[in-house]
Amino acid sequence: MRFDEAYSGKVFIMSRPAYEDADAIIYGMPMDWTVSFRPGSRFGPNRIREASIGLEEYSPYLDRHLEEVNYFDAGDIPLPFGNAERSLEMIRDYIRQIVAKDKFPLGLGGEHLVSWPVLEVMFEKYPDMAVIHIDAHADLRVEYEGEVLSHSTPIRKVCENYGAENVFSFGIRSGMREEFQYAKDSGMYMARYEVAKPLAEVLPKLAGRPVYVTIDIDVLDPAFAPGTGTAEAGGISSKELLEAIHLIAGSDVKVVGADIVEVAPVYDPTEKTPIAASKFVREILLGWVKK
Amino acid sequence: MRFDEAYSGKVFIMSRPAYEDADAIIYGMPMDWTVSFRPGSRFGPNRIREASIGLEEYSPYLDRHLEEVNYFDAGDIPLPFGNAERSLEMIRDYIRQIVAKDKFPLGLGGEHLVSWPVLEVMFEKYPDMAVIHIDAHADLRVEYEGEVLSHSTPIRKVCENYGAENVFSFGIRSGMREEFQYAKDSGMYMARYEVAKPLAEVLPKLAGRPVYVTIDIDVLDPAFAPGTGTAEAGGISSKELLEAIHLIAGSDVKVVGADIVEVAPVYDPTEKTPIAASKFVREILLGWVKK
Amino acid sequence: MRFDEAYSGKVFIMSRPAYEDADAIIYGMPMDWTVSFRPGSRFGPNRIREASIGLEEYSPYLDRHLEEVNYFDAGDIPLPFGNAERSLEMIRDYIRQIVAKDKFPLGLGGEHLVSWPVLEVMFEKYPDMAVIHIDAHADLRVEYEGEVLSHSTPIRKVCENYGAENVFSFGIRSGMREEFQYAKDSGMYMARYEVAKPLAEVLPKLAGRPVYVTIDIDVLDPAFAPGTGTAEAGGISSKELLEAIHLIAGSDVKVVGADIVEVAPVYDPTEKTPIAASKFVREILLGWVKK
Amino acid sequence: MRFDEAYSGKVFIMSRPAYEDADAIIYGMPMDWTVSFRPGSRFGPNRIREASIGLEEYSPYLDRHLEEVNYFDAGDIPLPFGNAERSLEMIRDYIRQIVAKDKFPLGLGGEHLVSWPVLEVMFEKYPDMAVIHIDAHADLRVEYEGEVLSHSTPIRKVCENYGAENVFSFGIRSGMREEFQYAKDSGMYMARYEVAKPLAEVLPKLAGRPVYVTIDIDVLDPAFAPGTGTAEAGGISSKELLEAIHLIAGSDVKVVGADIVEVAPVYDPTEKTPIAASKFVREILLGWVKK
Amino acid sequence: MRFDEAYSGKVFIMSRPAYEDADAIIYGMPMDWTVSFRPGSRFGPNRIREASIGLEEYSPYLDRHLEEVNYFDAGDIPLPFGNAERSLEMIRDYIRQIVAKDKFPLGLGGEHLVSWPVLEVMFEKYPDMAVIHIDAHADLRVEYEGEVLSHSTPIRKVCENYGAENVFSFGIRSGMREEFQYAKDSGMYMARYEVAKPLAEVLPKLAGRPVYVTIDIDVLDPAFAPGTGTAEAGGISSKELLEAIHLIAGSDVKVVGADIVEVAPVYDPTEKTPIAASKFVREILLGWVKK
Amino acid sequence: MRFDEAYSGKVFIMSRPAYEDADAIIYGMPMDWTVSFRPGSRFGPNRIREASIGLEEYSPYLDRHLEEVNYFDAGDIPLPFGNAERSLEMIRDYIRQIVAKDKFPLGLGGEHLVSWPVLEVMFEKYPDMAVIHIDAHADLRVEYEGEVLSHSTPIRKVCENYGAENVFSFGIRSGMREEFQYAKDSGMYMARYEVAKPLAEVLPKLAGRPVYVTIDIDVLDPAFAPGTGTAEAGGISSKELLEAIHLIAGSDVKVVGADIVEVAPVYDPTEKTPIAASKFVREILLGWVKK
Repeated sequence: MRFDEAYSGKVFIMSRPAYEDADAIIYGMPMDWTVSFRPGSRFGPNRIREASIGLEEYSPYLDRHLEEVNYFDAGDIPLPFGNAERSLEMIRDYIRQIVAKDKFPLGLGGEHLVSWPVLEVMFEKYPDMAVIHIDAHADLRVEYEGEVLSHSTPIRKVCENYGAENVFSFGIRSGMREEFQYAKDSGMYMARYEVAKPLAEVLPKLAGRPVYVTIDIDVLDPAFAPGTGTAEAGGISSKELLEAIHLIAGSDVKVVGADIVEVAPVYDPTEKTPIAASKFVREILLGWVKK
Repeated sequence: MRFDEAYSGKVFIMSRPAYEDADAIIYGMPMDWTVSFRPGSRFGPNRIREASIGLEEYSPYLDRHLEEVNYFDAGDIPLPFGNAERSLEMIRDYIRQIVAKDKFPLGLGGEHLVSWPVLEVMFEKYPDMAVIHIDAHADLRVEYEGEVLSHSTPIRKVCENYGAENVFSFGIRSGMREEFQYAKDSGMYMARYEVAKPLAEVLPKLAGRPVYVTIDIDVLDPAFAPGTGTAEAGGISSKELLEAIHLIAGSDVKVVGADIVEVAPVYDPTEKTPIAASKFVREILLGWVKK
Repeated sequence: MRFDEAYSGKVFIMSRPAYEDADAIIYGMPMDWTVSFRPGSRFGPNRIREASIGLEEYSPYLDRHLEEVNYFDAGDIPLPFGNAERSLEMIRDYIRQIVAKDKFPLGLGGEHLVSWPVLEVMFEKYPDMAVIHIDAHADLRVEYEGEVLSHSTPIRKVCENYGAENVFSFGIRSGMREEFQYAKDSGMYMARYEVAKPLAEVLPKLAGRPVYVTIDIDVLDPAFAPGTGTAEAGGISSKELLEAIHLIAGSDVKVVGADIVEVAPVYDPTEKTPIAASKFVREILLGWVKK
Repeated sequence: MRFDEAYSGKVFIMSRPAYEDADAIIYGMPMDWTVSFRPGSRFGPNRIREASIGLEEYSPYLDRHLEEVNYFDAGDIPLPFGNAERSLEMIRDYIRQIVAKDKFPLGLGGEHLVSWPVLEVMFEKYPDMAVIHIDAHADLRVEYEGEVLSHSTPIRKVCENYGAENVFSFGIRSGMREEFQYAKDSGMYMARYEVAKPLAEVLPKLAGRPVYVTIDIDVLDPAFAPGTGTAEAGGISSKELLEAIHLIAGSDVKVVGADIVEVAPVYDPTEKTPIAASKFVREILLGWVKK
Repeated sequence: MRFDEAYSGKVFIMSRPAYEDADAIIYGMPMDWTVSFRPGSRFGPNRIREASIGLEEYSPYLDRHLEEVNYFDAGDIPLPFGNAERSLEMIRDYIRQIVAKDKFPLGLGGEHLVSWPVLEVMFEKYPDMAVIHIDAHADLRVEYEGEVLSHSTPIRKVCENYGAENVFSFGIRSGMREEFQYAKDSGMYMARYEVAKPLAEVLPKLAGRPVYVTIDIDVLDPAFAPGTGTAEAGGISSKELLEAIHLIAGSDVKVVGADIVEVAPVYDPTEKTPIAASKFVREILLGWVKK
Repeated sequence: MRFDEAYSGKVFIMSRPAYEDADAIIYGMPMDWTVSFRPGSRFGPNRIREASIGLEEYSPYLDRHLEEVNYFDAGDIPLPFGNAERSLEMIRDYIRQIVAKDKFPLGLGGEHLVSWPVLEVMFEKYPDMAVIHIDAHADLRVEYEGEVLSHSTPIRKVCENYGAENVFSFGIRSGMREEFQYAKDSGMYMARYEVAKPLAEVLPKLAGRPVYVTIDIDVLDPAFAPGTGTAEAGGISSKELLEAIHLIAGSDVKVVGADIVEVAPVYDPTEKTPIAASKFVREILLGWVKK
């Protein structure tokens, strides 16, 4: 243990000791500086780790145990406060190192904008990749309040840079008219309000393809996940999101990376949001990370 | 802007500048003095307005934008603390002014008793009106703790003064035996536990009639709306209430006014209750207010 | 009123004045000393009583009124802090007195281990008894952190001492691999994730038998019951638990006792957990306690 | 125990069993219907009782034990919700019964207006009585928002009806200019900002007189008592209020009754406000109630 | 009222209707993007306004009434999320307009960095100005985590650009060794731990000079102001900060502008922090704004 | 880093990497199973560590930097839930290892009973040791609710086993009459209500002696430390406790070990209690740990 590892803080339950041997890397992206309404997701990664203490290491859903997956929790990327551009650059560099060694990056946000540099790197590596995007919000804006780097723009960037036909959004229930119009015109796939049912229909079409999955926790109804910056009523249940994770696990897509973003613990004194998120992380580790 | 407008406080997102031109008037009835268990709904209207900042102005459910509806948020009626009788009189006068100009009154409560003077005025204007009442509680008491003016009595008053056959209650899961007996004997309609399904059956029968809709937020399960005075387990989800609003929007009834009551923010540190209520207000504006 | 009754504190709504005449006894088991993650359920019984103030005395689900059931709230058993062994002994003695007079014991927890001494006494009295266990967790561990007396072990003890074939678990979504394996091998019944549907299938097979029902509030999703020590995402709704209670009420089993455990109010500033639990208590009193 | 005593709820620690024998009567006045800004003090009395569980029965300050005082906690007066006039009438009748038997009334509020009917009755009984008023607010308004029955008016009523020269206010740091002017012109005594020091000066002048003490918990800084309706920065510490209670206990005045009002627990998730108030009640019982 | 004034939100109590006539302008700087530990002060300005509803308009400390000061609450400057540089530029422009008309700028933060552009403009206007800085933190860093624009650097910038001998810091109890060393070497004035006493000594030396006062709410102990981003134990009381404000009001300095920063309401469910801050704003208006 | 170090969780800021080289060892004792009123202090140690992130590494009070002290945060002792006896045995063994190497043990509680086994070991090592006990409660009970192992008994045990004349208690404001009587009769020193002033008097008498200091966070008023199990109004400020720590640092006693106990974060949503405790830990490291 080097000196500064003493600061590294808590890790996700059963994280293995060595980065080098791990098949998957858990890492935090504690950034929320472009968030408009309610910031606080920078504390999401650590609270998800803390909540993981309450988890069983075995999943009855998948009949697998965390011992069966070799992963390393690398802590949070030390992003520079308030500087979105440099933060994204650092994430980009960080992910390049992970995928260079064919490891599975499992990111914890942080605001949704952090997925954008990750996706850039993933598309470099897997040009035929598809993106499964599970979210309450379309995130298809060109800009937000004059900023092109915003938590409302990442999916639009993906569409424009890597082809809208490679983007599959689920559970969307909020956005500007222009975003929904873009979704129709651009050729991307968008399922409104629901996740599990449309996902079951889409997955066979993606069979064999590398897939990156980005989950915004606010796809859940605020009843299930009040701890998020832009809570939106009318969402899905934790049960449905678990079902979606298991559908992907049981499909023929090859998941190459994933993230869960927008957990903002301060808005949830009951801690149910990080508790749920830590369970999703466990199921992703057990269901999506394959040798 | 007159001097005292400087006090008017926040308004619902995209409220227009002029009362005169508006087709709908949003107004608050910050009264909770007959509430027995947990007061606090007097702060409901303002927190609903505050939460509206987090809303998109466009509804993907209805494919409409708030620009398409001309409404004015007139602030709260300055009700005298602790004086129920005078408060109801003031509400009555206030609504008379709104409906005199054929505007759509959209009230924010406040305890449920505030709906009673509104309904009196609405029946003056529309004698053939029906009332759609969405609530966890029957609100059919003759009195409560010796008081005839109580949050538990408004629907009984409507039945007795304007005909029980014009009252349609949905989602009811709590009340005295006498209230449920009255519901059976009086000729009113009452659907227990559910809202969307029975509403879909009832709406065709109301086609063409003027309808006033009163929504008590506690029809939602406390999972979705803990911020209310008499939270009652076993309720519906935000999704089902949205569905109900959209069923009414798509039906052939003519909605002439509406209210959402009993939002008591102090019991909900997660703010999910006003967040949900503000979305319901948006959908009502977009779906029910027609030129 | 004797001197120390002045301390007895609040009681469940409409508790009758005399222990002797009562058909059912409500009692609290304010113990949480073997709880690992988040203690606090020792305050559960009193907050359930406090929340009962907000309940109607009539159930529209069962068309019964609390007047029709003669029950007495005997307060909390004065368990010695931090001493699990002696606490269990005291519970055992206490329940023996209740069942000696053929009264229905209705316990409020406290951690789930408190059900174990109750079940010992119930099996003494009703050797052909079946146990219906509604919970998120299997509670089938042999020990937990080296302790055989733990909140994770009570159902295993029942299986081993009274026959696994007499145990019927519902809603289970968390446990060690060994626990799920034991469930398969031992001959007990276990329904995962769901409660109402599998219960409807099992109940006819138990017709005529004496049944004890133990409900861990964490079977509910944290959306509905965040106030518990080991909240686990992906649970059932309050509606489904009400349905389960009503299925049992309408079945041909003879319920001889019940408990609701693991309500830990401090994790739920919205109070929705004790509010829901108090409603379940009412429905149990009205549906399961029969002369 | 009579039937409805079963409802009586929790009592202050070590309350004796019989009203008849008691020298002091603790009673709650759960009224907050004239409160303008933040209601909730109707729950004050019960949370003070609940917090008393955490108290020692012995006071090292006074070297006395609660065994040495014979008091009875009579529960809350069942005031009619929302009806200020009838509530005050009921309080008046209630106190008349207490003082008719020469018992010491120790009231728990509720909003400050509840002290008014108590003081009316006390002056009937003790025409030469002085009032010690410890509060952040002058409470000297003639009316508030058009209501003469308001939480802002009780001390003015006392001055006008029983002589301003008999009123001694301490700790005042908020009010209208007219109230401070009235304090100067009317001949009453008012100490601003501080309590203990001016009280030490005033007490000798009141030697031998019957004195009623009314304490508004908001005299404390919000650091010490955030759970109140009109928290006002710049107040005294709990230590200074304890000192004031002990100064009165050690003086030659004859305290004939007292109250602590405006504890509104919902604004204080830390529970420090009822915890402090319950300690003040203990010290009042031990220091002021004399045979 | 223009269209977008409908969005302007709530204002500080008794704000006058017209910007043009006002002697003082209240404005919000809702920025917190360089905050390292706990963001959230962007919501400070609005919660201070909201809390002002609970204030009296009269100050017994100063014997003045808000009617006697002509001020206008101009709402929040619409700062671009996440962009510190542009935000500071906008603040600079905004303040230039205010001081161009000889109005008193009274800013509400927001993180402390917002004071930097204000001070730049103030020194342009008043080259002989002194700065009174009341804070728990020295804010004398050259940079923070590599950023020169940080909430930890504003006072250093003032020292370097406008002369350390013009800076007078009070209440400082936290900082790096280098900051305390700089304070000694640079010729600035720094009083540790206390505010009122050293201020009383310093003020006579500043007689006749124009003075800008910047108050970081975290100078208060977390007991008095928990709602702030970097709460630091061992601070002063609200009483002492009021005393400091009154000392300045009674001195011979000419206050030309002021701000109160770092109110982050989300960390304070009791709302005592904005409640205290709104009182400080009232006392500043009444004591420092002079025709 | 060994495998299970991956679980070790967060550490106090600037903890050094190696146990062997360290002069002081920080360790947690996450036990609260004998706590009667409000458990939760088992989470104290970790939240103190978490809050340390917000601290500066330099103390202006002592002009020292954490770099100057070599300490290692060894994490929490893995105490067996609910088993007080075994927990105390484990603590005893643990401390023996620390003092065998002449390291300074700095413990984080946990309930106050954890200090008892530490003190046993310290007296083995330093038979002429004195104990400075800073607390709201006397902790001089012989037993509590029949248990001799209780959070109310540790100081009594010290008096009886190692001589009452070696015990010096400060700030005591709560206890049974018997405890205060024992304090008088036994020859121990007890200062009521205050800490800094009596400590300044006592310290010279202890010059040259080895001293262990045990601090119960509830010596602070609940205004400063609401996050504790038995909050008691009328306590000292954070400022006074800092002053006490600095008095000891500047005295001629030789501090050989210390602990801070009873931080129960769940009762303090503002986090001010762990924030204050982490500052006390820093000052103890800087002021008391000497080579």
